[in-house]
Amino acid sequence: MLNDRIRIKEVLGSDMVNHNITIMGWVRTFRNNQFIALNDGSTNNNLQVVAELGHYNEELLKRITTGAALKVKGTIIPSLGKGQKFELKAEIIEVIGDSDAEKFPLQPKKHSLEFLREIAHLRFRTNTFGSVFRIRHSLAYAIHKFFNDKGFIYLHTPIITASDAEGAGETFHVTNFDLENPSKNEDGTINYKEDFFGRPTNLTVSGQLEAELGALALSDVYTFGPTFRAENSNTARHLAEFWMIEPEMAFSDLEDDMNLAEEFIKYIIKYALDNNREDLDFLASRLLDEEKQKPQNERNEMGLIEKLEFVINNNFERITYTEAIEILKESNHNKKKKFQFLIDKWGVDLQSEHERYLVEKHFKKPVILTNYPKEIKAFYMRQNDDGKTVAAMDILAPGIGEIVGGSQREERLEKLEERMKEMNIPVKELSWYLDTRKFGTCPHAGFGLGFERLVQFVTGMTNIRDVIPFPRFPKNADF
Amino acid sequence: MLNDRIRIKEVLGSDMVNHNITIMGWVRTFRNNQFIALNDGSTNNNLQVVAELGHYNEELLKRITTGAALKVKGTIIPSLGKGQKFELKAEIIEVIGDSDAEKFPLQPKKHSLEFLREIAHLRFRTNTFGSVFRIRHSLAYAIHKFFNDKGFIYLHTPIITASDAEGAGETFHVTNFDLENPSKNEDGTINYKEDFFGRPTNLTVSGQLEAELGALALSDVYTFGPTFRAENSNTARHLAEFWMIEPEMAFSDLEDDMNLAEEFIKYIIKYALDNNREDLDFLASRLLDEEKQKPQNERNEMGLIEKLEFVINNNFERITYTEAIEILKESNHNKKKKFQFLIDKWGVDLQSEHERYLVEKHFKKPVILTNYPKEIKAFYMRQNDDGKTVAAMDILAPGIGEIVGGSQREERLEKLEERMKEMNIPVKELSWYLDTRKFGTCPHAGFGLGFERLVQFVTGMTNIRDVIPFPRFPKNADF
Repeated sequence: MLNDRIRIKEVLGSDMVNHNITIMGWVRTFRNNQFIALNDGSTNNNLQVVAELGHYNEELLKRITTGAALKVKGTIIPSLGKGQKFELKAEIIEVIGDSDAEKFPLQPKKHSLEFLREIAHLRFRTNTFGSVFRIRHSLAYAIHKFFNDKGFIYLHTPIITASDAEGAGETFHVTNFDLENPSKNEDGTINYKEDFFGRPTNLTVSGQLEAELGALALSDVYTFGPTFRAENSNTARHLAEFWMIEPEMAFSDLEDDMNLAEEFIKYIIKYALDNNREDLDFLASRLLDEEKQKPQNERNEMGLIEKLEFVINNNFERITYTEAIEILKESNHNKKKKFQFLIDKWGVDLQSEHERYLVEKHFKKPVILTNYPKEIKAFYMRQNDDGKTVAAMDILAPGIGEIVGGSQREERLEKLEERMKEMNIPVKELSWYLDTRKFGTCPHAGFGLGFERLVQFVTGMTNIRDVIPFPRFPKNADF
Repeated sequence: MLNDRIRIKEVLGSDMVNHNITIMGWVRTFRNNQFIALNDGSTNNNLQVVAELGHYNEELLKRITTGAALKVKGTIIPSLGKGQKFELKAEIIEVIGDSDAEKFPLQPKKHSLEFLREIAHLRFRTNTFGSVFRIRHSLAYAIHKFFNDKGFIYLHTPIITASDAEGAGETFHVTNFDLENPSKNEDGTINYKEDFFGRPTNLTVSGQLEAELGALALSDVYTFGPTFRAENSNTARHLAEFWMIEPEMAFSDLEDDMNLAEEFIKYIIKYALDNNREDLDFLASRLLDEEKQKPQNERNEMGLIEKLEFVINNNFERITYTEAIEILKESNHNKKKKFQFLIDKWGVDLQSEHERYLVEKHFKKPVILTNYPKEIKAFYMRQNDDGKTVAAMDILAPGIGEIVGGSQREERLEKLEERMKEMNIPVKELSWYLDTRKFGTCPHAGFGLGFERLVQFVTGMTNIRDVIPFPRFPKNADF
């Protein structure tokens, strides 16, 4: 049994002066043949290991290189250096795993995020990505805790599905066929009866419809799983594979939905502030450095921590789509034709530039937009009495745009079927979905939140590929 | 805002006598035009709603049918009936959603599990599946809590991957091609450069290799995500899509690995016993009924609760593969040729019948088998000094067989490369994996646990299709 080691987070977080302990970790830097900065991933902070001069042979000292794995036994002493309270006076240093300094791609210097993306298998060992992935963990945990404490049931909705009923976008096909030689019918079309599932299948774009089935029996459920889009979007905002959270609540309307979403976002951000302060502080200063490269007028007005605290301490602004259109139409931005897409009439879909204007210029806080025109929203959203809008809501966050999309669902069978026919949604294929409206239907509502967008918002990372361990995007499925 | 309702779990769990409250839920039964058993999915128990005779009109009473959704306002009173402490004396009853009793597939009687599998979108509304999915939720939550409290980082490893390097089984292909007309090279082969990811991709069979990348930077990580097998196994033990948990620990050996796995299993079972006792009691009595249909000698010796308590209160038996072979070879079972596959020599893979014999007949407790022959295990397992075995461990559970498979990983670059070549694992494709052995390698270990197997073990459900909301298996991808 190897594990008598103590994690560095624990060492730095408690007073262990004079304790004789063992730590293990990877060398970040080795200065003056004497000072080793050791990191074990439990915290962003390194423990300084002091190797007394003359105490260790040359051979060993040469092997203490950036990236090498060490086991160190020694005594904790108060540190004289600045920036650290304790350090470890080494008695025994053992190199567990060498690292050829000439070949190790991570040098003790600043690397570009682009370069680190190419060595995603090693970037966990940098300060930035250590912090990002510890925060990602905390946010995921906070999400489960939030819903569990509220009595929601975590539902694993299917990943492989035969329906793209939601029409949410292009899907990936899943097949067991040899693509060179799939089974074919006499007329030359694919014989899906011979495929694994006996029909065409694809990767899910959303677990919502299945979550509704759960909610109409268990009252409150949520999903947290991977979803997929086969869209050829090579941007800093899109991934082909990303994780989504989708709560669904029976006996709830649009207002309940907004209340839940706002409480939820505030809860998880507060959780990160309470549990990951060191990592957030590090990323905040990283972001500040990054911003310094930009012209003054493109910089964020708030620092990262300030922004997060602002979100948890202020009510989200709630306005209707119609009100938003009025604000945008009357804005100087619109009048001076600063928008790429000018707002001239009710009914148009809002672009990212409009959302950002509302959030960052006009209200300067997160905004919940409600009651969108039914033409630009999905078939399952509840139709409002005006005949024009649906009970939808999107939450827009500063710097990130849409972070939540939700709605009250159409629970009235006739209205739902009517809308499905209008929109060419196959009613028969979705008979199971309609059953919930036939047997004990009830008002219900839910929303979806893209997990990576949330991680971006909290960490301040500008490229979505930097907040998921191994990003999937066009022409890339490395690792 | 609709949600002034109180959940039935809360009503039944506290003393609210004389409180005037609102509840919402679905009718399970309606007796004597007077007693409504209402369920809202928060607990297996119904709240009895009493509709005073003569107080409600015929029209309304006719609509109170099994499956209908109701809103009831009334006063909590002590119950005179047996089996319940409180009931709700209704003042206002509103039918939110009707349910045509003639058409609603769930009648107030016992349905077969096979039938319920066909209406998986409605089976959440039965006692059995309500309990199963509440327990499934609790187990998932306990898993996150266990690892979070121990300082592990939750890592989302990729679902779509270009490597089936582990060779763990047949994979599903993922493609953006129109299968009728994929892009082809001049020689007629598929031109994968034109596919979405620019190469052939498939659904992951395990996140382990990527988890190792995380562990060799963050020390302790775990995955919890969907994994896939395109195997044509139409059994009660296999799914094409299932969820797996894979922890990975740096600076750890096989013993650490076993210790973690045993502590982990005990923790989550205890969590379910502490938090889902009503649901477990219900499933225990369901299982007892099911067992009564079997001949005496096929029945389990222990009830469900007894079995779970036994597991958390006893040490798992730890023996080597070699010891297990000796026990099996010398067993009366083997001598009397009761095994389908007789054990005659060292080196053979154990079949389910052997595992069950060890667990259920010989030791009568969970067993951890270690140090398997290297020929029957994966390339990444650490080679023992005997040259014959690897530092693997499987945990076998009563009634279920293998529930955990793990190992210490081969951290020595040369040994690993050598073994990969012997087993025809493409070394070049896995250069990223080998990098961890080049730069600061260290002893590390981990295991995988199939979540559905665990849910089966805890709920006593015998068919794996009954513990996941919408099971995926050959020729089936409904809902």
